[in-house]
Amino acid sequence: MEWKTAITRVEPNRIEVRGYPIAELIQKMTFGQAVFLLLRGEAPSPAQGRMMDAILVATIDHSVTAPSACASRFVASGGTPIQGAVAAGLLAIGSHHGGAIEEAQKMFMDGVEKARAKTIDLGVLATEILENHKSRKMRLPGYGHPYHKKDPRVGALFSLADELSFKGDHSRLSIELEKMSDSVFGRHLQMNADAVMAAIVADMGFDWRMARGFFLISRCAGLVAHSYEEFTRERPFRAVDLNNVKYDGADTRKL
Amino acid sequence: MEWKTAITRVEPNRIEVRGYPIAELIQKMTFGQAVFLLLRGEAPSPAQGRMMDAILVATIDHSVTAPSACASRFVASGGTPIQGAVAAGLLAIGSHHGGAIEEAQKMFMDGVEKARAKTIDLGVLATEILENHKSRKMRLPGYGHPYHKKDPRVGALFSLADELSFKGDHSRLSIELEKMSDSVFGRHLQMNADAVMAAIVADMGFDWRMARGFFLISRCAGLVAHSYEEFTRERPFRAVDLNNVKYDGADTRKL
Amino acid sequence: MEWKTAITRVEPNRIEVRGYPIAELIQKMTFGQAVFLLLRGEAPSPAQGRMMDAILVATIDHSVTAPSACASRFVASGGTPIQGAVAAGLLAIGSHHGGAIEEAQKMFMDGVEKARAKTIDLGVLATEILENHKSRKMRLPGYGHPYHKKDPRVGALFSLADELSFKGDHSRLSIELEKMSDSVFGRHLQMNADAVMAAIVADMGFDWRMARGFFLISRCAGLVAHSYEEFTRERPFRAVDLNNVKYDGADTRKL
Amino acid sequence: MEWKTAITRVEPNRIEVRGYPIAELIQKMTFGQAVFLLLRGEAPSPAQGRMMDAILVATIDHSVTAPSACASRFVASGGTPIQGAVAAGLLAIGSHHGGAIEEAQKMFMDGVEKARAKTIDLGVLATEILENHKSRKMRLPGYGHPYHKKDPRVGALFSLADELSFKGDHSRLSIELEKMSDSVFGRHLQMNADAVMAAIVADMGFDWRMARGFFLISRCAGLVAHSYEEFTRERPFRAVDLNNVKYDGADTRKL
Repeated sequence: MEWKTAITRVEPNRIEVRGYPIAELIQKMTFGQAVFLLLRGEAPSPAQGRMMDAILVATIDHSVTAPSACASRFVASGGTPIQGAVAAGLLAIGSHHGGAIEEAQKMFMDGVEKARAKTIDLGVLATEILENHKSRKMRLPGYGHPYHKKDPRVGALFSLADELSFKGDHSRLSIELEKMSDSVFGRHLQMNADAVMAAIVADMGFDWRMARGFFLISRCAGLVAHSYEEFTRERPFRAVDLNNVKYDGADTRKL
Repeated sequence: MEWKTAITRVEPNRIEVRGYPIAELIQKMTFGQAVFLLLRGEAPSPAQGRMMDAILVATIDHSVTAPSACASRFVASGGTPIQGAVAAGLLAIGSHHGGAIEEAQKMFMDGVEKARAKTIDLGVLATEILENHKSRKMRLPGYGHPYHKKDPRVGALFSLADELSFKGDHSRLSIELEKMSDSVFGRHLQMNADAVMAAIVADMGFDWRMARGFFLISRCAGLVAHSYEEFTRERPFRAVDLNNVKYDGADTRKL
Repeated sequence: MEWKTAITRVEPNRIEVRGYPIAELIQKMTFGQAVFLLLRGEAPSPAQGRMMDAILVATIDHSVTAPSACASRFVASGGTPIQGAVAAGLLAIGSHHGGAIEEAQKMFMDGVEKARAKTIDLGVLATEILENHKSRKMRLPGYGHPYHKKDPRVGALFSLADELSFKGDHSRLSIELEKMSDSVFGRHLQMNADAVMAAIVADMGFDWRMARGFFLISRCAGLVAHSYEEFTRERPFRAVDLNNVKYDGADTRKL
Repeated sequence: MEWKTAITRVEPNRIEVRGYPIAELIQKMTFGQAVFLLLRGEAPSPAQGRMMDAILVATIDHSVTAPSACASRFVASGGTPIQGAVAAGLLAIGSHHGGAIEEAQKMFMDGVEKARAKTIDLGVLATEILENHKSRKMRLPGYGHPYHKKDPRVGALFSLADELSFKGDHSRLSIELEKMSDSVFGRHLQMNADAVMAAIVADMGFDWRMARGFFLISRCAGLVAHSYEEFTRERPFRAVDLNNVKYDGADTRKL
């Protein structure tokens, strides 16, 4: 078994990420810029680097309202070292928690490709997509949020994307979907952080199969913070209060 | 890098665990017997096999009072496949949750070794151990439980160990520790499931570094049950009610 | 947030799995029987319990030819406690490694349901399924194996299922698929352990969404053995030999 | 059970990290600056933010020479989604792989505290520490590396720390330890990336219990890259070549 890799060259006294010596990256790059290089294979322009830092900052934490933070805290409480607590938190970032970034990005990319191929207007295409989801009774990935009606991350990321001239067709389609939702669904479907991240990384040219990766890197920091807080502020073996558990299974019986 | 292993030989059309063809094991062994063979390297006697099955049954589940079940449920809720939910639960089985088996077994083994070397009576040794823990203000691993005053697993496992003639010096020391606790600590320290498992596997001759392994194998089944229940009975993305979260950090401020 | 659960009732000094007091289960059940009760909600007949033990024994380990054992060993090598090493191994049990059990069980259940509804012969149905997979260029889940031409677990499990009178339509369909594969695919598609487990648990009446759970519980034991072996026989921080890594990315460059 | 947290306030339409509105952080901070705020509770100075970005860049990847990347690749190969592959990789960051950061930071902090309390020169103290490790035959955490004689990350990080005026007593002690190693150990103990990170975060005032967290956040990015590369460039179910596995256990036998 040979291991092939095109990411980092490691030889004695030499570490190069995508061809660039690590010492130069340490000297010149922010972490967001280095993530761009690592995942894209090429060094970012200043605007690309700035946008990547902003995306990673946007989802850095969402408190214990997120299942991931809860999972990390229970593992920390069980007395497993911090790498285990953080790993458990990342595990919770599944199709219902972060997964919408991937689905939304794929939806935007497929949509824009179709609009270009058939020269359809993005507003018309948005209506098509919405009607298609409505008729199949499917949720629109990246729209709606359990807590926020107006997610503060959406405006901040789009405003920066505007300033850095990153907003392209994927962002435009994402905005059309929100705009057209009232007439198709009869209620306003607000974009959430998943959709805005998805739209911008699509406009930046990233593969949708990498979309969840940005969220994992970003939230990893939040999970370190929650694990550390649990270790240092709470007593071990935190369990749900027995009064809050309702057993609704079989009554006592004998074999 | 060569991989050396003495566990299972796998060659085309041939699978042998510790030298025994898998077909024979399927035909003749319970899972508890196969676990004994796998972890010990030798086939169990009927009594050893019976005891191992009982140990694995004893800790198969403890509902959501255990941080491990909570961690599994949060990961299942995030929409990660069952292997991720079960893995997160196992991660919670750290030094404060399952870890006491290991610590208790080491304490019993060191104790018995010392008693044998110095021909001290186990009751006297138990008092020494208790006083030592008391003076260093240390918790006695495997004694006391957040819910149970009298853990039903202790009596059941010891009664079977008695019946199968497994109770040796490690079990005796574990019982002496409970008995002597009243006079040394001024309160009764009830053995819990960790201590009884530790005493019995020590009497069966297992390495204490493997102790947590029995609990991992056993509880893995409970975590499968909890993950499945979460997937099939609850709606996705379960989060703690915002009303139950108290933010006690810095007040709103500006950079 | 209330936690509902129908698995285990835990109250002070009381632990009941699916209504049965834990002390009784310890006294009377093998681990396989307890797993049946836990996952099915009802106590098994002797034959159901025997079959479950055999299924759990069958996939208990497959050496380092399995990605799961490799993942466990690398984590153990990094110096994370055993629960982390075992968790990492379970994580590898994804759609390409264990996942076929689930897919195969669903295929058998859908197939048998269709055969019953339309009173089609199982042999005819098997040919339909094979032709459908062939025309869509899809792999048949549970058939073929990277190492074994004739997996020894298949015969042993079916022979026991026969003896215990468990073989039903799902097993029959699984065998027809193998038999008919020569004429449809022009080569013999040998059943592997995934398919035989899937067929038998389907005949036993389990939900296909639980299929992977049996493999997780079983292999958890193998991963404990591999983690322990790595901790006790190898030096820390095992890394792939640098001579076996081929970097095929960008050549050295400057920003 | 109430959940207390001082990290992030989440209320409808409001997300504040350590008191700062997320929109402001997105607009103004690099990811390194946001990590500093998140883990420290206060916004960084420009120099603190710059240093944090550099630290996170330094360990962003080390190819498959690291057990963590191998674990991620095996899990990806098994067909588990990216969050599982990344989690498995983080799990490998245990006491033998990343853990030295924590141990080294504690050693530097205890050392500097002692030097200050007793007004001992740092060079004298370094000699004491080295002799103490030598006499107890203990490895000096953070010194020596399996591949690098002169780790390029060390010079780059210290040079930046110098430029930003961050080098304090912890860095000075770390350098004295390397310098004095020749005379005490009879060979030169080269600092590695663990030690330089540990020295600098100690000089920046971070708790040593958080040390491993910086490495987890940084390497999380590398593990995303490896998981993605495995998913997109390799075929599923990668297993070690059977020719490279040496079974050295019991020979074939019968029950």
